[in-house]
Amino acid sequence: MSNKLTGACVFAQSGGPTSVINASAYGVIRTALDAPEITNVYGAAHGVTGILNDILYDLAKEDDNELKLLMNTPSSELGACRYKIKNEEELHRIYEIFKKYDIRYFFYNGGNDSMDTCLKVSEFLEKNNYECRVIGVPKTIDNDLEGTDHCPGYGSAAKYIATAVAEVHKDTKVYDTGTVTIVEIMGRNAGWLTGASALAGLCGAPPDLIFLPEITFNMETFLGSVEDVYKANNHCLVAVSEGIRYTNGRFVSEAETSATDGFGHEQLGGLAFTLAHLVKRKTGAKVRGIELSLLQRCGAHLASQTDIDEAFLAGKSAVEYTLSGGTGKMAAFAREDAGGAYRSNIVFRPLSECANSEKKVPREWINEAGNYVTQEFIDYALPLIQGENSRKLENGLPRFAKLKKIRVEV
Amino acid sequence: MSNKLTGACVFAQSGGPTSVINASAYGVIRTALDAPEITNVYGAAHGVTGILNDILYDLAKEDDNELKLLMNTPSSELGACRYKIKNEEELHRIYEIFKKYDIRYFFYNGGNDSMDTCLKVSEFLEKNNYECRVIGVPKTIDNDLEGTDHCPGYGSAAKYIATAVAEVHKDTKVYDTGTVTIVEIMGRNAGWLTGASALAGLCGAPPDLIFLPEITFNMETFLGSVEDVYKANNHCLVAVSEGIRYTNGRFVSEAETSATDGFGHEQLGGLAFTLAHLVKRKTGAKVRGIELSLLQRCGAHLASQTDIDEAFLAGKSAVEYTLSGGTGKMAAFAREDAGGAYRSNIVFRPLSECANSEKKVPREWINEAGNYVTQEFIDYALPLIQGENSRKLENGLPRFAKLKKIRVEV
Repeated sequence: MSNKLTGACVFAQSGGPTSVINASAYGVIRTALDAPEITNVYGAAHGVTGILNDILYDLAKEDDNELKLLMNTPSSELGACRYKIKNEEELHRIYEIFKKYDIRYFFYNGGNDSMDTCLKVSEFLEKNNYECRVIGVPKTIDNDLEGTDHCPGYGSAAKYIATAVAEVHKDTKVYDTGTVTIVEIMGRNAGWLTGASALAGLCGAPPDLIFLPEITFNMETFLGSVEDVYKANNHCLVAVSEGIRYTNGRFVSEAETSATDGFGHEQLGGLAFTLAHLVKRKTGAKVRGIELSLLQRCGAHLASQTDIDEAFLAGKSAVEYTLSGGTGKMAAFAREDAGGAYRSNIVFRPLSECANSEKKVPREWINEAGNYVTQEFIDYALPLIQGENSRKLENGLPRFAKLKKIRVEV
Repeated sequence: MSNKLTGACVFAQSGGPTSVINASAYGVIRTALDAPEITNVYGAAHGVTGILNDILYDLAKEDDNELKLLMNTPSSELGACRYKIKNEEELHRIYEIFKKYDIRYFFYNGGNDSMDTCLKVSEFLEKNNYECRVIGVPKTIDNDLEGTDHCPGYGSAAKYIATAVAEVHKDTKVYDTGTVTIVEIMGRNAGWLTGASALAGLCGAPPDLIFLPEITFNMETFLGSVEDVYKANNHCLVAVSEGIRYTNGRFVSEAETSATDGFGHEQLGGLAFTLAHLVKRKTGAKVRGIELSLLQRCGAHLASQTDIDEAFLAGKSAVEYTLSGGTGKMAAFAREDAGGAYRSNIVFRPLSECANSEKKVPREWINEAGNYVTQEFIDYALPLIQGENSRKLENGLPRFAKLKKIRVEV
């Protein structure tokens, strides 16, 4: 076949980790190890920086059983980076490394920044007439990737959030003294994760109010809504996105925490506590701020099997697509209308369509008051959290993959 | 039989909720419903305050299937209180209510304060020659109850903490830029919960340092230890108890947060962020504070089946014990030496031995430097987190019990 290309492949992970990114890794690695055209299967340490620094692991030297455990191991097992290619020099460096190892297949597992890296590498290699097939494998809990119905990582984080919010709901109703509880959820620019808290309604334990970054935040409206619910029900449970902003574009977290304690915060966080404090001042209620923090992205014990399967499939399909000649694309999910039942297919989209832009929650999936999501949102998210994972346990605790990470010798 | 006593029973829940307190509720309710001597099975709303306020539910009117779901429903389904009996008048009020409903069995599910309530009620009724059998059913995630090897609620919280810390460990190692992560764990006076973070070592993802309230906290030593680990490993993961205190007895959380932001905190919290901030100032590292917050006590999705079974057994045994004439005791757990295998038995201890005092982690179960637990601690805690629960799910989410809570009419 004219499509046949023989050489090594390199796989790398980028951006924030998820509960299922390693399932995509396993999809790529397993399929690549089994492909006769692929002579060597390498993993780069810490994303593209591992290529730039020439730190590659020989994944053929790993035990099959340990590789398989990647299906239920959270976080990026090869290490990730948040690194944007700075200049042509770096692209040239990547090109040199690819030549050095005869790398003809490159799979980059990440979000929209990573798709941009993928695109740049792909274009540079093509310009230099170096044949290499480059595919992006999507990953982000934020679900803000364009070009795909949804993104591996989101379903598991959504399941974690819905379950945690339902459990917290139960907990906050225990005493007859009133309480206001603010749960802070990740998502700097998109409200997909925070909206998933509404799924807790399916177990009769929803939040009362939900504030997404898509809706400009107004503190007075916020405090008023919380007070209304609190007065009516004696309890109020609120889900807020870390990314809520004022009209002037400033993050509420930054504006309010620096006003309160006078030192700058380099990363978002502490918003739940700040809002809880302001609610207390306004209502006199007993308040509590809860930040789901890293747990929502690494809580693999609650990973959705649908998400795990899809993450694996994205990796597997990416390799298969390159073997049949494909390049310059991202493996995306298209949702089929299967008469009410959920079904999805892998489709390949040009990297240029997926890179850099962020997909937001549509305005019509948020209620008019801007403080809850609609049934459409719930119908969209619910299929993605289905299926209980069958992770391996030892001593009642997760048994994570243990990779040897043997450096490639040349 | 001379022991036979006919009349109603009342069950109530007190103190902070746990993932398995409702399994004890089911143990009491199911057994009481099946006992011919027990004419009515009542549940008090919000602990002893439900008795004082005459708000009782008729639990015979609940659906059996919903009652059974209490086995996997977190938090206190009947509502709890943090209420200490203030005077003889209140005890008299309880006595009146008991007479009103012919209550001859009283089961109080709580921690050491609740055992004190139980004891006072028991003594008052006896003094007034009102025959009523009173048993305490132990409950606390803190595991600080005297008179029992361990306490229902602890195993599940410990399993949650160990799993969460292991997952966070994986997440924090993703980037090659160094990080210090501080995880704040509940336990105001006892370090059982914080020590459970060491169990994460069994999946190769332990914290580096553990600080318990049993060891007087020294900020300089703390910062020095963190810096040493960070310099050596580029990462440092620390588990701290919310209850760490300075030599003068002051909580670190209170001393430091009020110094930083100038407003008083009524409840502990924010310690992880404060410590992270101080570590950043000292080391320049990228830091993150994570508070496990309510999730560690309501995360029933990770409840240990051992803990669920024991919680149920404590409730069931309490009823059986009263049916054979027992009173004035708490259902406690004795650990058997079964040749290395874990086994426990229910034994009944006088309430006076269990009330009010707090069981701490023994000094010899903490390392010499005071910044980790020993193998003895791990051997103690590990059996308690065993067994995966088989909770019922609907739509990929927990299906909690839905009680009708029908008020008793007289």
